[in-house]
Amino acid sequence: MNYFSSDFKLGILGGGQLGKMLLSETRKFDIQTYVLDPSPEAPGRMACNQFFVGDLMDFDTVYNFGKQVDVLTFEIELVNIEALEKLESEGIKVYPSPKTLQQIQHKGKQKDFYVTHNIPTAPHQRFNSIAELQQYPNTFPFVWKSAQFGYDGNGVKIIRTAEDLNGLPDVECIAETMVPFKNELAVIVARSPSGEIKTYPVVEMEFHPEANQVEYVICPARIDSAVANTARAIALKVSEHFNHVGLLAVEMFQTHDDQILINEVAPRPHNSGHYSIEASYTSQFEQHLRAILDLPLGNTDSKAAGIMVNLVGAEGYSGDVVYENIEKILAIDGVTPHIYGKRETRPFRKMGHVTIVNEDIAKARTIAEEVKNAIRVICTLK
Amino acid sequence: MNYFSSDFKLGILGGGQLGKMLLSETRKFDIQTYVLDPSPEAPGRMACNQFFVGDLMDFDTVYNFGKQVDVLTFEIELVNIEALEKLESEGIKVYPSPKTLQQIQHKGKQKDFYVTHNIPTAPHQRFNSIAELQQYPNTFPFVWKSAQFGYDGNGVKIIRTAEDLNGLPDVECIAETMVPFKNELAVIVARSPSGEIKTYPVVEMEFHPEANQVEYVICPARIDSAVANTARAIALKVSEHFNHVGLLAVEMFQTHDDQILINEVAPRPHNSGHYSIEASYTSQFEQHLRAILDLPLGNTDSKAAGIMVNLVGAEGYSGDVVYENIEKILAIDGVTPHIYGKRETRPFRKMGHVTIVNEDIAKARTIAEEVKNAIRVICTLK
Repeated sequence: MNYFSSDFKLGILGGGQLGKMLLSETRKFDIQTYVLDPSPEAPGRMACNQFFVGDLMDFDTVYNFGKQVDVLTFEIELVNIEALEKLESEGIKVYPSPKTLQQIQHKGKQKDFYVTHNIPTAPHQRFNSIAELQQYPNTFPFVWKSAQFGYDGNGVKIIRTAEDLNGLPDVECIAETMVPFKNELAVIVARSPSGEIKTYPVVEMEFHPEANQVEYVICPARIDSAVANTARAIALKVSEHFNHVGLLAVEMFQTHDDQILINEVAPRPHNSGHYSIEASYTSQFEQHLRAILDLPLGNTDSKAAGIMVNLVGAEGYSGDVVYENIEKILAIDGVTPHIYGKRETRPFRKMGHVTIVNEDIAKARTIAEEVKNAIRVICTLK
Repeated sequence: MNYFSSDFKLGILGGGQLGKMLLSETRKFDIQTYVLDPSPEAPGRMACNQFFVGDLMDFDTVYNFGKQVDVLTFEIELVNIEALEKLESEGIKVYPSPKTLQQIQHKGKQKDFYVTHNIPTAPHQRFNSIAELQQYPNTFPFVWKSAQFGYDGNGVKIIRTAEDLNGLPDVECIAETMVPFKNELAVIVARSPSGEIKTYPVVEMEFHPEANQVEYVICPARIDSAVANTARAIALKVSEHFNHVGLLAVEMFQTHDDQILINEVAPRPHNSGHYSIEASYTSQFEQHLRAILDLPLGNTDSKAAGIMVNLVGAEGYSGDVVYENIEKILAIDGVTPHIYGKRETRPFRKMGHVTIVNEDIAKARTIAEEVKNAIRVICTLK
């Protein structure tokens, strides 16, 4: 198959920032792309050959879009799976497959999958409704998760008392035992249709000491190499069992006694892999492309240490975005901002990220804090 | 000035591969771009906000295009300078300035400039016509260069006998003494309107032992550090005298007695800096953007050794391009192809390049040769 400067067409469901960064790699390889997104202002509207506006959950929209391309992938899990199944049955290559997506999209099924395959994860129970959950003798605190349609922290809540259950939506859900942990880790695994598999190094999510928010994604994780090897091995095992094609981002907890428990997975490029654009020999986006096109996978090693800081809208600001002090951070060696291209900021909206690359990880961590303290995503005064 | 996700508009004259790679950086920063190119099939037609088809040498076309933007730059020197002058006089920021471009575009003036500023260069004479050149007592061999409109080796010829003069176009020209050299080197210098200056490491052009063609651009050059320091200092001096804004690629010869002679300069991103996309902390394209927008310049150091191999159309093939054995080179660690997006290959047409990045420069060199020997730019059989 000739993908380069040819008639081959890759379809991407979703034109958000992940789609945008994936498109950058398709341009590098001159691969034709069609993108479908509900918003005419999507960051991925540019740099694709054809942009379509439409609902990713609508069967006809997704089906008709998919019929025009040779390989179909997605940057968001919330897509119409029935349409993907029909497209696959009609010979369109859909990567990751609808089957993989189905197992992952439903958090109850995803948890059961780990139990079935003997992959360590926090204990859980599945419930069809809030009423069912209320009847069960839960030990507080526990973690409530909506079985479906959660995204970016939505659909997850820590339940400390019975009263906390009252405000929850009445949907199918799981209750998960809250396991104390000392680190949140992630490993991205790439797998091609031919079965070639490569794992990226273990990264560490460093949380703000007070706010329960990831502040830095750090590669490599500052953990014992034995723990890192275990985490990479577990991620590989998860990947093999899912039999997925493309990237699989595997999020894990490191408990206080150095056990690795799997938290959840995402079958696509992931926030925890953004550092790879600057720090790795092969960025996660190029790797996803290589994988779904069944090209040889690239080297997942790093050229230098990488730290990623998310740029989210500051509280109290809604309107035309301004990146305050961006000149200050550009003046620091090895600092690269990525601006996703959303004109309007809102509190906590993901507007971009900044990568810090340095030979010395401690130096990178110091710079990351400087960056975090300097830049603010606010808006123009009207 | 707020460049990011704002109403600010950058104009780029030329949408070839240099424009395309520059656009990739504007997308990363979400800077609005307008591009003008004579070909509706230009590689830079995508990933810009507005693409215009038009003649870069036509006054009205360039002027009307430039009036729509806030800052204007170019990826090719063959543009209408009068239009740039008028735009500049009307308050549009044009970087590099028409004045700089004028000094560089004319090879006679460029050579005089080095002599005036005491910058070492091979001796030369200027002539208004072939007849004038024929009357002058030249010592053979010498190098004939068309004073204007040369590009990619066009407009340059080695003259070994009086008969060689017969086929030349009757234009203003220079005759340059042929100085034997052991290395061809280049240094890219970035300079902002505020006067901040940074130089990239010295790179080396390795030639094919038989064909007189650059095979590899190697960073860092495998030369003595004293020679490298001299080359960097001379490039800096050239940059300071030109007082340019943006990048200046300075090509030099290293003579057998380790003298550095300047060959010529290009006021824009350059083939000799393509390695920087993967190997440097700041790619030459990001650096050009930072410079012309008067943002702080980025770190020019390398994360690892980088070698670039040009992908040119193989002899005997004209038609729909196929990159033969591209899967083979993708299987090698640290190898990244860049496909410019030209559908049709022709003998010697620049179709792309491949970057090899490795911690060990000797290993990178071995891989570069593997890459060179494996890949072929041919076309589909019809």
